[in-house]
Amino acid sequence: MQNSADWALIESNIRDRVAKQGFMAHVGALVEDLAPGSCTVSVTRRPELLQQLGFLHGGCIAFLVDNSTTIAAATMLRPGQAVLTAEFKLNFLAPARGDRVFARARVVKPGRTMTVAVADVFSVEDGEEKLVATALATISVVTMPAGAAGDD
Amino acid sequence: MQNSADWALIESNIRDRVAKQGFMAHVGALVEDLAPGSCTVSVTRRPELLQQLGFLHGGCIAFLVDNSTTIAAATMLRPGQAVLTAEFKLNFLAPARGDRVFARARVVKPGRTMTVAVADVFSVEDGEEKLVATALATISVVTMPAGAAGDD
Amino acid sequence: MQNSADWALIESNIRDRVAKQGFMAHVGALVEDLAPGSCTVSVTRRPELLQQLGFLHGGCIAFLVDNSTTIAAATMLRPGQAVLTAEFKLNFLAPARGDRVFARARVVKPGRTMTVAVADVFSVEDGEEKLVATALATISVVTMPAGAAGDD
Amino acid sequence: MQNSADWALIESNIRDRVAKQGFMAHVGALVEDLAPGSCTVSVTRRPELLQQLGFLHGGCIAFLVDNSTTIAAATMLRPGQAVLTAEFKLNFLAPARGDRVFARARVVKPGRTMTVAVADVFSVEDGEEKLVATALATISVVTMPAGAAGDD
Repeated sequence: MQNSADWALIESNIRDRVAKQGFMAHVGALVEDLAPGSCTVSVTRRPELLQQLGFLHGGCIAFLVDNSTTIAAATMLRPGQAVLTAEFKLNFLAPARGDRVFARARVVKPGRTMTVAVADVFSVEDGEEKLVATALATISVVTMPAGAAGDD
Repeated sequence: MQNSADWALIESNIRDRVAKQGFMAHVGALVEDLAPGSCTVSVTRRPELLQQLGFLHGGCIAFLVDNSTTIAAATMLRPGQAVLTAEFKLNFLAPARGDRVFARARVVKPGRTMTVAVADVFSVEDGEEKLVATALATISVVTMPAGAAGDD
Repeated sequence: MQNSADWALIESNIRDRVAKQGFMAHVGALVEDLAPGSCTVSVTRRPELLQQLGFLHGGCIAFLVDNSTTIAAATMLRPGQAVLTAEFKLNFLAPARGDRVFARARVVKPGRTMTVAVADVFSVEDGEEKLVATALATISVVTMPAGAAGDD
Repeated sequence: MQNSADWALIESNIRDRVAKQGFMAHVGALVEDLAPGSCTVSVTRRPELLQQLGFLHGGCIAFLVDNSTTIAAATMLRPGQAVLTAEFKLNFLAPARGDRVFARARVVKPGRTMTVAVADVFSVEDGEEKLVATALATISVVTMPAGAAGDD
């Protein structure tokens, strides 16, 4: 487990890397509630994120799942390690009509070479959080050769 | 199987609906090679689609998988039916560095209430198609009450 | 929601059908803790359920997931409906060394044509429940034509 | 790539390990057509492998997928490496009524730490191979410390 100084460094590294993701900015997504083993990523409803019926596009939900699970895995790295999404599976449960939609990811099993995380996606509608998707993801943990500049 | 007049109508309906997807335009994706049982969706490399290392973002690859498999399923609908993505699973195989990345989806098993499709995602690098992801998806087929305006 | 008379009938139907599964008896699995929306299926360690290192075989864990999720979905059926497993995804988290291993499934989202369930698989080792696998499943809900003898 | 002497050793190691799987014998499954990057595992219809309607049990199909994909990955190992199933996703496409059912697995992407494989499951009915399931799997490749006795 990390102490609080380690955690501050991990959090700052993660936020730096995410800030360099062009797609994150293009979608307008925000990392919220970063903590060891968990991460929430959200978007605010905008016309350019929707599908033809006015719901948040499934591809945007998939992006929230992909990023939230990978970042949740990254919160548990040790120095010299990086993460890489191996795969995920995503079930759509209901249309996402809300003004704000967020994926809340949580590490189920951290591993030396592979971490497993789940994510639930909620749409905030009339002040209520409605579950709109659920996912199960595998994230590769890569140990960098000593001296390499770490990145995910 | 559809005859060519049916197919022209199906294709035009699909292209109309896709044209109304704000996220499709925001990502800058194109539907190519639409045919009964298959669909290709592509993007061209732009900074706003990348992650921090300069590869196409996994969330963008997931979007290509989501849309290509759902559209491939939609090519096999009968009048009064609509599609809805139920779930998909996506494995990332290699970084997508190419100027153009596309998902090629194909229906494996069309069904009355559920269609199963696969998609392979390729990155075009130095003129070669490199496989960067592969996916397996389930798409719900919904039969609309008579008189309802169909949409997916 | 079912009242208690409905539930007694549903439970008895499910147990009858499961009792007719040759593979269930061959594996020696038991349905435990059946309740509306949830189901636990267990096996007791025997040499014929193991792989070469003495852990419960992954195929046996997959069987527990398949049956527990489908039965959990069946607990929420209405008269004239039947279930059919559409797909599942299963992550192995740790070797299952215990004398007893069970899958605990829970419906996440019941649906008119499709139900989504999760399952966690635990190995009981030295009196402790260790999480050894986790799964996410989609179960088709089929409405039988009036007069048909229902079955899954 | 392996030369033929390497391959003979790999094949013999795989067959030895599989022969030690109690569950393999209990189900009565056979490894067929082992080759670098691919593997076929089959069962013959017996009452104890069926569900209540007389089709091959989904759990048995899942076992065929689990073993065939893991063994296919094992065919591509280098000395000192072992495999471990990380996860798989399986779609059921049609009931398996045949006298013989087999899973044919193929490596899509071999990796240093992770291999991705697909499997198609066929039921042989009236001499025809009918596709009854399809799957996508991730297999961990573990490098053993020098001197350790390799096993999967």
